[in-house]
Amino acid sequence: MGYQKQALNRDRILGPTAPRKRFLSNTSSESQSSNRKDVVSELHPLTNQSDNIRLLDYELQVKRRFDEIVPLLKRISALQHHNDFIPQAQQLAKSVLGFELPQYILEKAWVRPLDMRALFAWCVFQAHQYSSNQFFNSDPLHGSEKTQPANDFQTFLSQCGFHLLDVTPCSDGRLAHSIAYVLRIPFSTVRRRSHAGALFDVENTVNRWIKTEHSRYRHGNPNSPNDDTRYLKVVVYHFSSLSPSHQGCAAHGSDDSKAAEAGYQRLLDFRESIEKSFCCGASVDLLLIGLDTDTDAIRVHVPDSNSHIDLKKWVSAMEIYEGTRNLTYKDSIEFIEQKIDEKSPGKTQKGIVAFITKIIVNNISQIDYVRQAHNGAYPDAGHSERFIGVGIGFKEVHLRNLTYFSHLDTVEEGSPDLDVGIKIFKGLNVSRDLPIPVVIRFDYSGKVPGAKARAIADCKRVNNAISIRYKELVNDGLLHTCLTVRDRDKKGSAEIVGSSLDPAIKEEH
Amino acid sequence: MGYQKQALNRDRILGPTAPRKRFLSNTSSESQSSNRKDVVSELHPLTNQSDNIRLLDYELQVKRRFDEIVPLLKRISALQHHNDFIPQAQQLAKSVLGFELPQYILEKAWVRPLDMRALFAWCVFQAHQYSSNQFFNSDPLHGSEKTQPANDFQTFLSQCGFHLLDVTPCSDGRLAHSIAYVLRIPFSTVRRRSHAGALFDVENTVNRWIKTEHSRYRHGNPNSPNDDTRYLKVVVYHFSSLSPSHQGCAAHGSDDSKAAEAGYQRLLDFRESIEKSFCCGASVDLLLIGLDTDTDAIRVHVPDSNSHIDLKKWVSAMEIYEGTRNLTYKDSIEFIEQKIDEKSPGKTQKGIVAFITKIIVNNISQIDYVRQAHNGAYPDAGHSERFIGVGIGFKEVHLRNLTYFSHLDTVEEGSPDLDVGIKIFKGLNVSRDLPIPVVIRFDYSGKVPGAKARAIADCKRVNNAISIRYKELVNDGLLHTCLTVRDRDKKGSAEIVGSSLDPAIKEEH
Repeated sequence: MGYQKQALNRDRILGPTAPRKRFLSNTSSESQSSNRKDVVSELHPLTNQSDNIRLLDYELQVKRRFDEIVPLLKRISALQHHNDFIPQAQQLAKSVLGFELPQYILEKAWVRPLDMRALFAWCVFQAHQYSSNQFFNSDPLHGSEKTQPANDFQTFLSQCGFHLLDVTPCSDGRLAHSIAYVLRIPFSTVRRRSHAGALFDVENTVNRWIKTEHSRYRHGNPNSPNDDTRYLKVVVYHFSSLSPSHQGCAAHGSDDSKAAEAGYQRLLDFRESIEKSFCCGASVDLLLIGLDTDTDAIRVHVPDSNSHIDLKKWVSAMEIYEGTRNLTYKDSIEFIEQKIDEKSPGKTQKGIVAFITKIIVNNISQIDYVRQAHNGAYPDAGHSERFIGVGIGFKEVHLRNLTYFSHLDTVEEGSPDLDVGIKIFKGLNVSRDLPIPVVIRFDYSGKVPGAKARAIADCKRVNNAISIRYKELVNDGLLHTCLTVRDRDKKGSAEIVGSSLDPAIKEEH
Repeated sequence: MGYQKQALNRDRILGPTAPRKRFLSNTSSESQSSNRKDVVSELHPLTNQSDNIRLLDYELQVKRRFDEIVPLLKRISALQHHNDFIPQAQQLAKSVLGFELPQYILEKAWVRPLDMRALFAWCVFQAHQYSSNQFFNSDPLHGSEKTQPANDFQTFLSQCGFHLLDVTPCSDGRLAHSIAYVLRIPFSTVRRRSHAGALFDVENTVNRWIKTEHSRYRHGNPNSPNDDTRYLKVVVYHFSSLSPSHQGCAAHGSDDSKAAEAGYQRLLDFRESIEKSFCCGASVDLLLIGLDTDTDAIRVHVPDSNSHIDLKKWVSAMEIYEGTRNLTYKDSIEFIEQKIDEKSPGKTQKGIVAFITKIIVNNISQIDYVRQAHNGAYPDAGHSERFIGVGIGFKEVHLRNLTYFSHLDTVEEGSPDLDVGIKIFKGLNVSRDLPIPVVIRFDYSGKVPGAKARAIADCKRVNNAISIRYKELVNDGLLHTCLTVRDRDKKGSAEIVGSSLDPAIKEEH
């Protein structure tokens, strides 16, 4: 239990450099410490504590890598006029961060003040790259393809009547852990596309649906088109139970009913597009979930068999948490199923009931995760992302407030999402005179010749579009980019193919 | 024959305002007139003269609408300080162009010189809209869906073993008539996507292939996936027989062997992408065609049964034209088939032989078309497009040198193509102090709710990206845009949804 105790140390996850806006404002530190005991002593019987320990360990490890950067750079800044500055700086960096700093930046310290912005961005990119490599090499979330958890979940999905699970959370960093933490779903079994306000692109999703159907027809993958299963499209909007009018979804004016309504409308548009464009009863199933970013508790709008949803009714995982604390496993499941039935506007398919039951049970572990590690509510109630992820990919990013996602093919189409991210980081970083670190990623299919070169060209195109759209930030060294590509057909990690920090400007000739 | 004689009047198609760079430089007018008689007197026995007459009539009609604009505006310019300027101008416009000019532009004439640039762009957009309406309303090319020619050609394609014909000509305006004129294929039976240098986007085309396959599996449309047919991807590169090193494809430095090689490589990349990404023998057939933009004669690189092509060998339609002048229909076909066999690097599929034979026979009519109307070679050997078409659609544009195509979803991705178009129009229009008219088009599926609104949003997004990328031109009134959308599920025409010429700036609120 020593390990677990360590995990419960709030100071550890809240390194002094984690960018954050506010702590819980409505809880005094006294009441926090008195609450903590109660909270910690009683785990919910459905909570998977070993998973919680593993997940917390991973979260702490990765975030520490980012949060050690500023204090280390402060120390290095103080050294810059010392005689043996460079070796001292490199030794410090190596011992604290695990890697050396770029020599060509350090070497300029004698002629002008050390470019701390460049060093900061460089360290963030290194920390990301390190975490990315670790993720693909050691599968810390136990969710990669063909593992037992992934196979089990895929089987479960099939039993529920779904052949593909496609989730769009809001691109807000406070939802970046939706899949692996909040819902506890093996990441390889889900298609995740984050968008501001959870407003996914309908045409794009129709194309994904077509590809899935084609694969069923041609390859029988994930199953035969004759199997009576559906494509399940899920939207995860968010709200804040503690500060509803300030810490909700900015894209919907912190109004959770608007966020839910807009998400539901987008789901309906998607379904109608499928139904009107294809014959033979083509359709999809829809699910709308709300996430309380303070507690990670979800609420699920139960759909009837026609995917009709009552926006004002939902099953609350927090209420279920309370209502099942003293029940056996079997009674808990019955309790959940009964709640689902009560909140449904009509008859609900057995499969969707089983799916909702599963994610609510999973979410109970996450509620305890937040209770244990953060006394029931996150201290970083607002944004405190470490970098912006732009492009297509980022299979390895599953931590809350680590990354603001901007899933896009082009800045031209994705700029509404990206603008929100830049605005957030102006508050988080630029206000502290630190640059916005942007990791650009394009996944490609390695078995297709030329695909890697095209992915690299995509990175460069997006990098160029960013440097035009956010020209002033880039010119002031307040926005740096790291260009990465990854072969989605392999288990390997991403590859860095360029950066705004490269010493010589590499122009194509 | 009176009609035909009229058509042969060179001056008629070359209105004094048609933007053009040069006439034929290596043929004296004397030799032209002496040649003309021979050329005109002897039509090739395979030529479909009634089609030629109809097609020429259509070309003259449409181009006249564009080419009457400048002389009319010159007359109006001279009137601008007359007392009854506005009614006079409107009467003139109405009688010559068939429509009135925008009152709010004319009304400003007393306070500052008439905005001739705006009037020019406005007239071009009107001329396009008029032609577009005419095209969709009366099907002047006899190529729309479910007509006899379209059905017959679709049947022929099936018999050749193809279920979809997908052609990428260069976006150069001198290839804009490739489908309906040069190859004489009913436009509704082809997917056409023009790209600079004929370098189509591989991923995009793979997506089109997937959609086609899915439609075969789900709807049995255009045929069952069990039918042994293929997707035929064709690239049309171009060259100039009269001025090979100046009037060839700019994207390949006017080097036809480079143009052919790059086009072939892109075809191979596409095929490899399909073969490596999908199982069960998934593949496509490939065809490479060269077009002589002076004479419209094609040359076809005959593929063997494995789509292997010899870049240095081709069947020349011009040679076949000469070689079959005195043959019967049956002998001509045998002659063509024999030439195809001679030029093939191996065994060629019967279906592709039939397809090549068909387009060569069709092309013979086009060779005579150019001989009759232009004395064997176009006088506008270089660019003389009337407007740039940007976006997805333009099913109605099938005339040589009418439109420079920039098929794109985003300016960010399509800017290499679009930049070429802007450069061409700087020479054609800006050099004469006239603006570049850009018609933006997004086709949508009217049966999908929200699709029209998304198409309009796409138009606005692209319009905005153009106004950023070509800021100076836009600010100087030297680039104007007209935003149009069209329901691809209907036979109706396109709808104008905005323009840079709108009197009040319509901002979204």
